[in-house]
Amino acid sequence: MKLDALYSELTLKTKAKLALVVLDGLGDLATPEQNNMTPLEAATTPNLDALVRSGCAQGRMIPVAPGITPGSGPGHLGLFGYDPLEFQVGRGVIEALGLGLELRPGDVAARANFATLDARGVVTDRRAGRIATEICERLCAKLAAQIKSIGDTEVLIKAGKEHRFVVVFRGPGLEGPLTDADPNREGFPIPTVRPRDENNAGQKKMAALVADFYKAALPVLAKEKPANAFLMRGIAHQPHIPLFEERYRLRPAALAVYPMYKGLAQLVGMKKVEGPATIAEQFERYLVEYPNFDFFFIHYKYTDKAGEDGNFLAKMKALEDFDAALPILLRKKPDVLVLTGDHSTPVAVQGHSWHPQPVLLHSAVSGSDKLERFTETGANLGSLGIFESKYLIRLMQANARMFDKFGA
Amino acid sequence: MKLDALYSELTLKTKAKLALVVLDGLGDLATPEQNNMTPLEAATTPNLDALVRSGCAQGRMIPVAPGITPGSGPGHLGLFGYDPLEFQVGRGVIEALGLGLELRPGDVAARANFATLDARGVVTDRRAGRIATEICERLCAKLAAQIKSIGDTEVLIKAGKEHRFVVVFRGPGLEGPLTDADPNREGFPIPTVRPRDENNAGQKKMAALVADFYKAALPVLAKEKPANAFLMRGIAHQPHIPLFEERYRLRPAALAVYPMYKGLAQLVGMKKVEGPATIAEQFERYLVEYPNFDFFFIHYKYTDKAGEDGNFLAKMKALEDFDAALPILLRKKPDVLVLTGDHSTPVAVQGHSWHPQPVLLHSAVSGSDKLERFTETGANLGSLGIFESKYLIRLMQANARMFDKFGA
Repeated sequence: MKLDALYSELTLKTKAKLALVVLDGLGDLATPEQNNMTPLEAATTPNLDALVRSGCAQGRMIPVAPGITPGSGPGHLGLFGYDPLEFQVGRGVIEALGLGLELRPGDVAARANFATLDARGVVTDRRAGRIATEICERLCAKLAAQIKSIGDTEVLIKAGKEHRFVVVFRGPGLEGPLTDADPNREGFPIPTVRPRDENNAGQKKMAALVADFYKAALPVLAKEKPANAFLMRGIAHQPHIPLFEERYRLRPAALAVYPMYKGLAQLVGMKKVEGPATIAEQFERYLVEYPNFDFFFIHYKYTDKAGEDGNFLAKMKALEDFDAALPILLRKKPDVLVLTGDHSTPVAVQGHSWHPQPVLLHSAVSGSDKLERFTETGANLGSLGIFESKYLIRLMQANARMFDKFGA
Repeated sequence: MKLDALYSELTLKTKAKLALVVLDGLGDLATPEQNNMTPLEAATTPNLDALVRSGCAQGRMIPVAPGITPGSGPGHLGLFGYDPLEFQVGRGVIEALGLGLELRPGDVAARANFATLDARGVVTDRRAGRIATEICERLCAKLAAQIKSIGDTEVLIKAGKEHRFVVVFRGPGLEGPLTDADPNREGFPIPTVRPRDENNAGQKKMAALVADFYKAALPVLAKEKPANAFLMRGIAHQPHIPLFEERYRLRPAALAVYPMYKGLAQLVGMKKVEGPATIAEQFERYLVEYPNFDFFFIHYKYTDKAGEDGNFLAKMKALEDFDAALPILLRKKPDVLVLTGDHSTPVAVQGHSWHPQPVLLHSAVSGSDKLERFTETGANLGSLGIFESKYLIRLMQANARMFDKFGA
């Protein structure tokens, strides 16, 4: 029997409230450069410490598989209980979500770069000298003004940072994924895209559309310098993901500030709660929305940002800021509360990493691991052990007493 | 290569003696209500402590999968090395075993409840007011007197506690599983059972038999109050389970007091050793049977019972009673000794739970985790880590030096 089917079969509807608080990129490493302390260890976190001492289970989570560093997409899909290897989201979709585009079922999205072609049509710079964001915005506006649709398909173009932009195709019968319109190195022409599956009619239609899009768009850019062309990658449709509410029998709300995380939540059917701009405001809003939902995904970005910047003190500060806001959430403690990251972003790595992130779970039946604080080293000793992120939501459901007994 | 096939291929016949001692529902939680102590931590267990200090490996086991709370069936199948997701035992079978019925291959068993129907045939009480056990026994005797067989199929009816009973169908060409003859809530009529697989001839025959059984049995109960009807669930045949002795090359004996656990042992082909009524007698009998078997499953019920009752002191006492008897077993220490539970039954949960149960393994090559005692918190730090119960027996075999090297 498939495990997901078993979980579904055992799921009971209860009145429990669950909150998943994601400190993006939470996990870190103790290194000699940082006195063998992680930011979590170095930070002063009295509220978190009190929560731990009130009785929590701890552990560490493998975002995808040993050694795999996830992007935000797989990182969050795992937290939402979807196996990131089974549910893959194209880079175009992630990028579109990240730029705040509202994707609809059936949309195909592509990640695009402005690039430079020589007179023979050979790519001489895959990033067009990393043009300024303002230039990118001007070029995207120019393209969008000229190309609103191709046949029965609407075309949406949105500028990103520097040379990056996103193209969304919205029309009947479209499917991805396609091969990339990107030689992946300089000195070669832009390859024609092909269906990944030659027998898929939707992919064939989509490949023809991309060719038509190039035919229409390249003349618009012909006189631009250096951005006289563009490459397209990760051309794929929004994946068919079972809706969160149906899968877990929980009405979910997303309290996120950054578009990417709102988008990822939306991908699984969470309701975006718009408005709050700080973690304190997010927690205040959680209190207001408490009766309206069963599951709250609350996303905090700044731990990841500091990790990406390799800034130990900033990550420590981000944790202390978070800790200062925590009592707001605890005014109405959910039945099951989890604090964790979507992955580690160690200061020493200056980027996402594969190191299992620490996780803390508090409920009336979480038991206590008798740890004094929530840290990476402490979490190694916890009763949750090391497990794959995709099981977290199942443990939350179990703690919410949402599962019937399996077998007699 | 399938792992089970590899284990089989590597298995050597040795003279080792292995003992699996199951303290039912052993695992527990530290909660503020109990001074942050588990019963294992609070109990005085000098004999167990001495065993730990003599050199043991510890860890924790996930009975089925993260968050899944197992019944005794899946819990024990896991301990016996059978993946509980692959080998599912119907509730009817478990219940029949629990009532001490000897099931034969091909038998289909159903769990039944006396219930109350109104004049329109709507279920108004799924448990007929939880009638007394004596009434249940009288009604079962009445049914059994009227219905001995249907066509070529023998019908066996056995009363359980309160409103519960079991029906076993013994005849040619029967198969399960069927859907339940139970609306699962009041206010609906009893649904007609259907084959789970519409193309399965044995299930079709079985569904027709259940319909005939209802036709014959309901008139017998028509004038009873409040138990004028019954519901049937978990209608399934005994699963085809590879025999323990063939699978592991170990002659197994079961020393259990309660019928359910004898039944589960019998399901995998263990020899039931009848007679002992206390854990001390079970250990005494182990000493006597030592030359006759290679593998001893010894089951101790009272830890689970106390957990179900939410009685911390009773669970502590059950552990101390167990500890007092332990020296009897240790008079003839098996080559591999394991103490564990089939699942946790935390006092705070007052029922089975999903929390990984602690496990202790002692052998000449178990090594020592240098822990002072056997507790949940200590087991978190052990060299066995957290693993699925189904691997326990493989670790026992390895410790018994029963596996050849894999590859050169």
